Amino acid sequence: MTPLTSTPEWQALHSDRAAIEDQSIAALFADDPDRFTDFSITVDGLLLDYSKQPISRAVREQLLAVARARNVAAQRDAMLTGQRINRSEDRAVLHTALRVPAGAPGWADATIARDVTATRSRMAELATAIRERQRTGATGKPIEHVINIGIGGSDLGPRLVLEALAPLSDGPRVHFVANIDGVELQQAMAACDPERTLVLVVSKSFGTVETMANAHEAMAWLRRCVPADDVLARQVLAVTANLDSVRALGLDPDLALPMRDWVGGRYSLWSAVGFSIMLGLGPAAFEALLDGAHVMDRHFAEAPLESNMPVMLGLVSVLNATLLGRRSQAVVPYTERLGRLSAYLQQLLMESNGKSVDTDGDAVSLSTAAAVWGQTGTPGQHAFFQALHQGTDVVPVDFVGVARPVAGEKGDPLELTAHLFAQGQALMQGRWGEGLSAMQRCPGNRPSNTLLLRALDARRLGSLIALYEHRAFVEAAVWGINAFDQFGVELGKGLAADLKPIIAGGLEPAGLDGSTAGLIARYRHWRG
Amino acid sequence: MTPLTSTPEWQALHSDRAAIEDQSIAALFADDPDRFTDFSITVDGLLLDYSKQPISRAVREQLLAVARARNVAAQRDAMLTGQRINRSEDRAVLHTALRVPAGAPGWADATIARDVTATRSRMAELATAIRERQRTGATGKPIEHVINIGIGGSDLGPRLVLEALAPLSDGPRVHFVANIDGVELQQAMAACDPERTLVLVVSKSFGTVETMANAHEAMAWLRRCVPADDVLARQVLAVTANLDSVRALGLDPDLALPMRDWVGGRYSLWSAVGFSIMLGLGPAAFEALLDGAHVMDRHFAEAPLESNMPVMLGLVSVLNATLLGRRSQAVVPYTERLGRLSAYLQQLLMESNGKSVDTDGDAVSLSTAAAVWGQTGTPGQHAFFQALHQGTDVVPVDFVGVARPVAGEKGDPLELTAHLFAQGQALMQGRWGEGLSAMQRCPGNRPSNTLLLRALDARRLGSLIALYEHRAFVEAAVWGINAFDQFGVELGKGLAADLKPIIAGGLEPAGLDGSTAGLIARYRHWRG
Repeated sequence: MTPLTSTPEWQALHSDRAAIEDQSIAALFADDPDRFTDFSITVDGLLLDYSKQPISRAVREQLLAVARARNVAAQRDAMLTGQRINRSEDRAVLHTALRVPAGAPGWADATIARDVTATRSRMAELATAIRERQRTGATGKPIEHVINIGIGGSDLGPRLVLEALAPLSDGPRVHFVANIDGVELQQAMAACDPERTLVLVVSKSFGTVETMANAHEAMAWLRRCVPADDVLARQVLAVTANLDSVRALGLDPDLALPMRDWVGGRYSLWSAVGFSIMLGLGPAAFEALLDGAHVMDRHFAEAPLESNMPVMLGLVSVLNATLLGRRSQAVVPYTERLGRLSAYLQQLLMESNGKSVDTDGDAVSLSTAAAVWGQTGTPGQHAFFQALHQGTDVVPVDFVGVARPVAGEKGDPLELTAHLFAQGQALMQGRWGEGLSAMQRCPGNRPSNTLLLRALDARRLGSLIALYEHRAFVEAAVWGINAFDQFGVELGKGLAADLKPIIAGGLEPAGLDGSTAGLIARYRHWRG
Repeated sequence: MTPLTSTPEWQALHSDRAAIEDQSIAALFADDPDRFTDFSITVDGLLLDYSKQPISRAVREQLLAVARARNVAAQRDAMLTGQRINRSEDRAVLHTALRVPAGAPGWADATIARDVTATRSRMAELATAIRERQRTGATGKPIEHVINIGIGGSDLGPRLVLEALAPLSDGPRVHFVANIDGVELQQAMAACDPERTLVLVVSKSFGTVETMANAHEAMAWLRRCVPADDVLARQVLAVTANLDSVRALGLDPDLALPMRDWVGGRYSLWSAVGFSIMLGLGPAAFEALLDGAHVMDRHFAEAPLESNMPVMLGLVSVLNATLLGRRSQAVVPYTERLGRLSAYLQQLLMESNGKSVDTDGDAVSLSTAAAVWGQTGTPGQHAFFQALHQGTDVVPVDFVGVARPVAGEKGDPLELTAHLFAQGQALMQGRWGEGLSAMQRCPGNRPSNTLLLRALDARRLGSLIALYEHRAFVEAAVWGINAFDQFGVELGKGLAADLKPIIAGGLEPAGLDGSTAGLIARYRHWRG
C-alpha cells in the first residue's frame, strides 16, 4: 500500500497545513452565507453539521481528492459485497449485511442473506416466546430478568442501546456483567429471582476468560437456587460460534444463537449479540435499530463523496488527528441516555484503528486513531470544558443533541439545547477584547461537529452508531490500515496466564522484570 | 513568572529529550536490580510504582532539579499555610485544612481550623440524627433516601466515593442528580418515597442553573407528595455559601451547611459538599476518608522531593505530557467500584490545569494538562487497549489495583490481578521475534505507573484522591499556572443564556453565526 505521505493529494493538503491550522473558522462564515447549508448533511432525522471546522471549499476538495486517491469508494464497495477485506484474518466484513431488511436487496451473497434472515427470525421467535411468557424458566415461571454475560463487543453495544432506549423497555429487565471482579455479577444476582432469570452467555469462542468465569458463577447460582434438573438447558442461552463447548457445559445447543466470523466483536450488536436488546425492547424496536443503520449504510454506499456523511466525518477526523496532530477528541452527548457513548466509541474507533502497520504490514507514515473520550453535557461543562476552552491543546469535539426528548421524559430541553449550541459557538468565537484579563480570555477558533438527532429512538440510534462505524472505515481506508483485526490484545492475555500461577504462589517468579516481581510480592504481602 | 523553557534545568532536560524518548525501559531494569525498590514509594497502604517510566537515576535528578527551580516545595508550603495562592481570584486554597484531624496541629490559621471543626461536628451531629432516625421527614417518617442535587465538584467527588465504597453503605441510599435533562432526577424520584427523602441542594452560589432547576423540580415534588406545610424546611438541606437565597426559597438556614471561598469545587468533597458521603457511610467512614487524605497531605508536606509520591507522580506527568508531547493519558482501575475515577480525574486534572497563561497572565511556553480518560480493567482491555499496544501514539497509563477485595466481594481477584500486572508488563516488553507477522508485533517500551491499594477502604481512597489533587498541584507549580481558577467555563454559560430566548422562539436570531442559526432552525423544525 502506498504510504499516505507519498500520494500527491496528501502532499498538496500537507503543504497547506499551516494555512488550515491558522484558518479563522468565523471568517469562513463571514465569507459564505450558505456555509451551514453546504457544510451540513442530513440523513433521515440525523444531521451532521461540520461547518465549524477549518475547512474551506478548497480544502474540502483537497480532502476529497485524498479520499479518491485512497480508493475509499472502491474499498467501501469491497466491504459491502463481502470481499475478504480483513486480510490479516482472511475474512469478509459483513456487519452491514445484518441490517438489510428482510426481502430487500442487499450487497452480500444469497447464502449469507439467508443466514441473516434465518437468525433474525429465530431471535424474534425466541424473544417473543419469552416476552409473551410462553417460554418460561425451568420451574414454569416467566422470565423477568436477563443477565447478559459478555465483554468488549459482546457487552458495550447492547449496553449502549438498552441504556439509550431505556424508556422504551417493555420486556425483561436486562443486567450486564462484563468484568471479572464480581461487582456487576453480584449486583445482578442480588436483583434477580433465579427462577425468573435467563442468562445469556455471549462469546464467539466460548473461551473468553472473563465471560466463562462469570458464566460458571451464574450457572452455579442457577443450579443452587432453581429446583429443576434442566435449569441450565432451559435458562442459559449461548450466543457463540462454538457449539461443542455449549454441549460440553450441559447447555442446549438448540437454544443457542450463532456468531459468524464475518462479524467482528465491535460491530456485532446487530447480530445475535444484540439478543438482549430484542428481549428488552422487542423485535420491532430491534428491527427499527437495524433499519436506521441500514439507512446509513445505503447512504454511505450511494451518496457522492462530498455529501456522504460518514465520508465527511471520517475526513474531518483525518484532518484533525493526522494533518493537524490533534491527538485526542471529545464526544459530548447532551443526554444522560447516551452516557456510554464515549466508552462505546473508545472501542469502535480505537480498537479498529489503533494500528501502526498498513494492510501490507509496513509501518504507517503518519498517526492513526487519536484517543476519544468524553462525558455528557451539561455535566462535562462543569468538569473538563475548562481545558477545551483554555487549554494548550486544540481538542476537536463531537457534540450530540436530541431535538425531541424521549417520550415521557421531563427535564429542561430548552436549557439543555441552549448549552449544547452555546458550547460549539463559544469554542469557535472565543473571548477577547478590552477589560478582560489574560485569565479570562479564550483563544477560540476551536473546531467542533454537531450531530443532531430528530429523536432518540431506535431508528436514529441505529443511524448514529452506523455512522461512527463507517467513520472508522473511512479513516482506515485513508490511513491504509485494516480496521478489523486486533492482534495487539493478544500479548497481555498470554502474559496474564503466565503470571497467574506466580501470583497464586505455586510458581517462582523466575525471569520476571523487577517491576512485575515487585508488584506481585507487594500484592501477596498485602493480600495476606 | 519565568517561562519553564527559560530555566537552565528545563533546558538541560530538554536537551536529553531524544535520549529519554529512546530509552529502553527494560534496559533500566537489566542495569539496576534494585530499580523497583528505588522507583516506588509507599505511603500507608498505597504504593506507587513508577519504575516502568523512561526515567534513569540521572533523569530523575534532572526532573527534581526542575522541581527545585520552580520552587515546588515553597509553593506547596504557601498553599498549606493559607497564602492567597489563587491570585486571579485572590483566595487561599485550603482543602488540606479540611482533612486535619480534630485537635491535631494543622497548617492553616486557628480561625479556619475552628470553622472546619465546627462544620465537621455539625455534619456529624446532623448525619447521626438522620441515620439514627431521630431527625425524620416532615411527616415523622425516617429518612431512607437522599437525593444529592449538584453538578461538577458538587457531584463527582461524593459520587465517586459512594460508588467506590458502596459495600460499606449502612445509611440512607443516595441518588445523584447533575444533568438538567431530567433523566437522573426522574429515576431518583421514581426510586424514592417522598416522605422518606432528604434533598441536598449543593451549590456555592445557590445560582448554578442546572442545580437550581433540578432543585425546583424536586421541591415541587416534595410539596406535591408530602402532606406537611414545613416539608421544604424539614426535608431540603442546602450546602452553600449563599444563605440569603436559602431563606428566599423557604428553606431552613439553620439546617444549611457552609461552603467556603477557600475551597474550590473540584477539591470540595472533604467539606460539607461530602455530606451525602457521611449520610451514606456514617461519620466514622467520612473521618477515615479525611484521615487517608491527611496522611497523604502530611507526606506531601514532609517527604523529601525524591521520595515524595505526589511530587514524583507530578514530575512523571510533566515528563510525558510536556517533554515528550504525550497529549493523552489513560487511567485504568481494575475494579468496577472505581468506574467513575476517570470522569473524576477529568475534572480534577483538566479543569485545574487546562490553562494557557501563567500566574502573571503571560502565555505559557509549553503544553499543560493532557487529556485524561479511561475505563475499568479488564473490560478496557477488550475495548481500547489495542490502541495502547499497537497505536501510533504512546499513551502513558496509570493502572490502579486493589490487593484486598472489598469485604463480601466475590469475583476472581487472582485473574483480575494477573491481567492488571500483565498489561503493564506487556506495554513495556512488547512482542517481537521470528514467526510473528507485522500485524502481531507490538513495539513495547510504553510507560505506565501502577498504584496498588492495600484495600479499597475509605482511608486508602482518601489517600488516592489526595494524591491526584497534589499531582495537579505539582504539575501547575512546574508549569507556572494557577490550578485553582476556571475562567474558561464562563463564556459558554453566558452564550447559553443569550441563545435560550432565541431557541424558545421569542427572539430573532440576529447576528448569529450561520452554524448556530442553522442548528437552531433545524432544532425548532424537528422539535415541532
